Amino acid sequence: MYKITVLPEGPEILSQPGKNLMEILRGAGVFVDNPCNGKGMCGKCKIKHLKGSLPPVSPGEDSFLSDEEKHRGVRLSCLVEPRSDLTIELVQKEKKHEVLTTGYLPEFKVQPAIWKKTFSLAPPTLENQMPYEDIFVQATRGDYDWRLLQHLPSGPGTCTAVYSGNRLIGIEKGDTTDQLYGLAVDIGTTTVVIALIDLVSGRELGTEAMINAQKNYGLDVLTRVTYAQEHPEEGRKQLQAAIVDSLNEMMEMLCTRYQVDPDKIYEITVAANCTMLHLLLRVDAVSLGKSPYAPIFTRSKDLPAGDIGLKASPGARLYCLPSVSAYIGADIVAGAYVAELSKQKGNVLFIDIGTNGEIVLSHQGRLLSCSCAAGPALEGMNISAGMRAAHGAIEDVKITPSGIELKVIGDEEPVGLCGSGILAVVRELLLHGFMRKEGALIKRETLPAEDYRHNLLVAEGNKRSVLLSGTPPIAITQGDVRQVQLAKGAILSGFYALLSKAGITMDELDKVIIAGQFGAHLPAESLIGTGILPRGLEEKIIYIGNSSKTGAYIALMSVEAREEMEHLAREMDYMELSASEGYERLFVDCLAFPVK
Amino acid sequence: MYKITVLPEGPEILSQPGKNLMEILRGAGVFVDNPCNGKGMCGKCKIKHLKGSLPPVSPGEDSFLSDEEKHRGVRLSCLVEPRSDLTIELVQKEKKHEVLTTGYLPEFKVQPAIWKKTFSLAPPTLENQMPYEDIFVQATRGDYDWRLLQHLPSGPGTCTAVYSGNRLIGIEKGDTTDQLYGLAVDIGTTTVVIALIDLVSGRELGTEAMINAQKNYGLDVLTRVTYAQEHPEEGRKQLQAAIVDSLNEMMEMLCTRYQVDPDKIYEITVAANCTMLHLLLRVDAVSLGKSPYAPIFTRSKDLPAGDIGLKASPGARLYCLPSVSAYIGADIVAGAYVAELSKQKGNVLFIDIGTNGEIVLSHQGRLLSCSCAAGPALEGMNISAGMRAAHGAIEDVKITPSGIELKVIGDEEPVGLCGSGILAVVRELLLHGFMRKEGALIKRETLPAEDYRHNLLVAEGNKRSVLLSGTPPIAITQGDVRQVQLAKGAILSGFYALLSKAGITMDELDKVIIAGQFGAHLPAESLIGTGILPRGLEEKIIYIGNSSKTGAYIALMSVEAREEMEHLAREMDYMELSASEGYERLFVDCLAFPVK
Repeated sequence: MYKITVLPEGPEILSQPGKNLMEILRGAGVFVDNPCNGKGMCGKCKIKHLKGSLPPVSPGEDSFLSDEEKHRGVRLSCLVEPRSDLTIELVQKEKKHEVLTTGYLPEFKVQPAIWKKTFSLAPPTLENQMPYEDIFVQATRGDYDWRLLQHLPSGPGTCTAVYSGNRLIGIEKGDTTDQLYGLAVDIGTTTVVIALIDLVSGRELGTEAMINAQKNYGLDVLTRVTYAQEHPEEGRKQLQAAIVDSLNEMMEMLCTRYQVDPDKIYEITVAANCTMLHLLLRVDAVSLGKSPYAPIFTRSKDLPAGDIGLKASPGARLYCLPSVSAYIGADIVAGAYVAELSKQKGNVLFIDIGTNGEIVLSHQGRLLSCSCAAGPALEGMNISAGMRAAHGAIEDVKITPSGIELKVIGDEEPVGLCGSGILAVVRELLLHGFMRKEGALIKRETLPAEDYRHNLLVAEGNKRSVLLSGTPPIAITQGDVRQVQLAKGAILSGFYALLSKAGITMDELDKVIIAGQFGAHLPAESLIGTGILPRGLEEKIIYIGNSSKTGAYIALMSVEAREEMEHLAREMDYMELSASEGYERLFVDCLAFPVK
Repeated sequence: MYKITVLPEGPEILSQPGKNLMEILRGAGVFVDNPCNGKGMCGKCKIKHLKGSLPPVSPGEDSFLSDEEKHRGVRLSCLVEPRSDLTIELVQKEKKHEVLTTGYLPEFKVQPAIWKKTFSLAPPTLENQMPYEDIFVQATRGDYDWRLLQHLPSGPGTCTAVYSGNRLIGIEKGDTTDQLYGLAVDIGTTTVVIALIDLVSGRELGTEAMINAQKNYGLDVLTRVTYAQEHPEEGRKQLQAAIVDSLNEMMEMLCTRYQVDPDKIYEITVAANCTMLHLLLRVDAVSLGKSPYAPIFTRSKDLPAGDIGLKASPGARLYCLPSVSAYIGADIVAGAYVAELSKQKGNVLFIDIGTNGEIVLSHQGRLLSCSCAAGPALEGMNISAGMRAAHGAIEDVKITPSGIELKVIGDEEPVGLCGSGILAVVRELLLHGFMRKEGALIKRETLPAEDYRHNLLVAEGNKRSVLLSGTPPIAITQGDVRQVQLAKGAILSGFYALLSKAGITMDELDKVIIAGQFGAHLPAESLIGTGILPRGLEEKIIYIGNSSKTGAYIALMSVEAREEMEHLAREMDYMELSASEGYERLFVDCLAFPVK
């Protein structure tokens, strides 16, 4: 047995000699990209060898590795077998986009809705022509959907009955009790994450992430809803098909990668915002976009996955987590559950920062929520040099008198700014006196020529900007700063409105929990440096990662947790900021940036 | 008020002056073909004027009527208004094929599963953003399918809730309680009949009939099942699509004709043989075609009509009547219910003659059934000059020394023999000594040349036949006679097997009930003359028409009747002839024809 230690944060894996590294990693659920399925043909499954013994680089590897890579110890995991205990480091970024797929997991009672049992089938005879339906009902009990009859095995022998709770959802030939899979899905307006879960062990085999294909119908929810409204015949169908096709595609990729039969996927749990859930079920979402912002539904849904075209097992179920209101969706319910907000003793603020900033305050056992329209600036949208968190995006910035240091995703040449980079720039601009409290960049002329900031400030006519990188030129403009300012004002005013409703102050907060794949990339330094969070909260910030996906995972693994989530959704209060007295004034007050 | 008497068997209608005849007939549910919707443009709505006063033929009518028609009193019903009490005769045959759509109707408790109630909708406000789902649940109660949410009205005012039993299946804007329709469907292997029913009044607005489009995949059930088996990917889908498309097409025709919105059709009840029900629901029917002949299901089914692609109201239900076994389907359960077999005091034999002859014996309160493979000969198939009961088919024959008298459907030149014609020929051949007890036609040479039969008997080599008509030549061959003989043997042996099982004789029978659109065309004279029924039963024969469709109608109109049908299906015993001792011998004995 060798012990394989996987850095930066992967598991320690025990493995028999004779397996290649990719098999070992895959067996432990560690994702290594390998389009050729471990045939040594694609050269994608690179890892970095840190400690322990590996055979020398073979000609097969050599053709895929640069000299620099060989010098750093990069190897192709499908072509090397460990010869001793080993320490390696994963070098692949998540595919295409940096999407966080892991995060904090609270304790919960494991009891998936889906389960199996075997029974022995006594087929009909000429003397007893009992219909198969009756034979199976006798052997299995439980309610069932008529469509079960479309997929019955025949002939004698062992069969396996599949249940969702007390509902019979499938009958299979042979003993298939060891094959029991589900999918936990987080549908964001921008990104969709899907995890393949082994329901027997509870293990996440792997994940896939994709940009939400609905983006072709609009970047934000309102544009998509408007699209559906303006195309009454086909709009809702197209939006549904976009997301369902993406889910099917990712499901297929995961099934291929982990050699799982899609017919053995019996449940798909979905956390998402309320609009995404409406679009997923092809339910009219128009009412969410206009006053009084009432959704068609917020309750959880448990329905045949095939009803919306998901291609899992024929009897597979789709469980959609409950929402609270049009703008506090199931993703936030999932997050509040994962963050155990209902069990918190002190005053805890929970925030999921995205196009909308959803905020929940836990205070004296009560949950109070609101949603603020932050706009897409913090995600890199509506920013002149903005881009998503992909390779080439500047994700952090340090401005010093001797120059600007950029941290770029993938260690490549910078091509733009992602959300965390934008916040970092604004933080640095404030820190180094490039701008004033009201958000105006200072004039180049006001600075002496020897000031290091002089050359960084650019002015084309009235349009001021700060140059971050020369080739290609990347700058942050006055307009960009205003976008960030609007987002900051929206979020901060949401905090204050909630605190004010609960009658407490910022000082009385015990924790601030940052959820979401995006929030996890926003360091406290940036959040506080830009004034999204007030000073003094530095030490109280906790990141819990993609709690929406984690909530979907827990719902897949625990019927008890589902009930608790449904209770939580019913009990959470929602505060409509636009209907809240004095909110406009508060918003304006919150636009001011913190300056030294 | 004028009284309009409609011959041959239609109702007497009371009508205000000022309406045209077609409006009057249509209002009373009497079908008159009128593709142009009563605009005087298509000339199809012909009726024959027998008594009473009508205006003279107008120029508009004149252009559509031949001199012969005008002489006979034919008029266009959409262009004439009665001026007094009137007697008319319907001259249109049922479209394309003679399909019986009416029949005997027993008493039952009227209480359709579908019903409506109105309520007042209080929409959400900014202060109370209650989801529409919750608002509707509060107002309507009842379980509902999630898909209801895809079709909710918005805005304030009166709404109408539609229920199937306690299940909420639709919510509509405004008060729509007067619009409540259903379809009663009989799916035969050969013919599909569909009736549009006003659930408020229980009135049949009209019917449509079509040849089952599945015939493209095989004329009989076994060929279709084999087709599905040999095309595992697409076969079941194609067979289902064939019948569902036909149903949708007929539904659309009826809705157009009677100006009914398809969205106001809330339930479709289906009676059919067991194979047709399997194919309708895309359930594997292979097990029905091979020993031990166990179906996948016999229980009744109540499911969303949209699940199989029926295009009625989005929440419409599909109710399939229960079957007994693979070869005693829901059509026979419907028939046994319509014939009130469970309530009969004496010994009653019920038979539905078709490709299979299904027989039910009611004896001392018990129902015993069997099915015999009659083959398609009695329906005009596998007969050299055979054809369906369409225009030009010989439906009756009289042989006399002075010649052969033919009765032809539509009073046209004969082009072939339909089922009743074939039986009539065999009856006449037996009556006039053309053939022997064992089914062999006599040799032409054995007759003197002056015998009138001499010229009718034709022999080509060994192949003997009897000429019925010269231009075009229509004959019945020795092979045709054998086909009829096999059918006759199968049915008669079924009778005897059932009677023997019950321990009674033919003499002890009190009634013989002939069901089915086809059976209604078989006069007692032919049934007994060919030996399908033994002599002595002449006066005990009763015809009840298409009791399968009638049963579907009753199921639509009465939840109590459904329960009784389900009880009847469970209680009916089934006797598998092929597993019955001595059956082969009995069959051979029953092949002998009755001769004088």
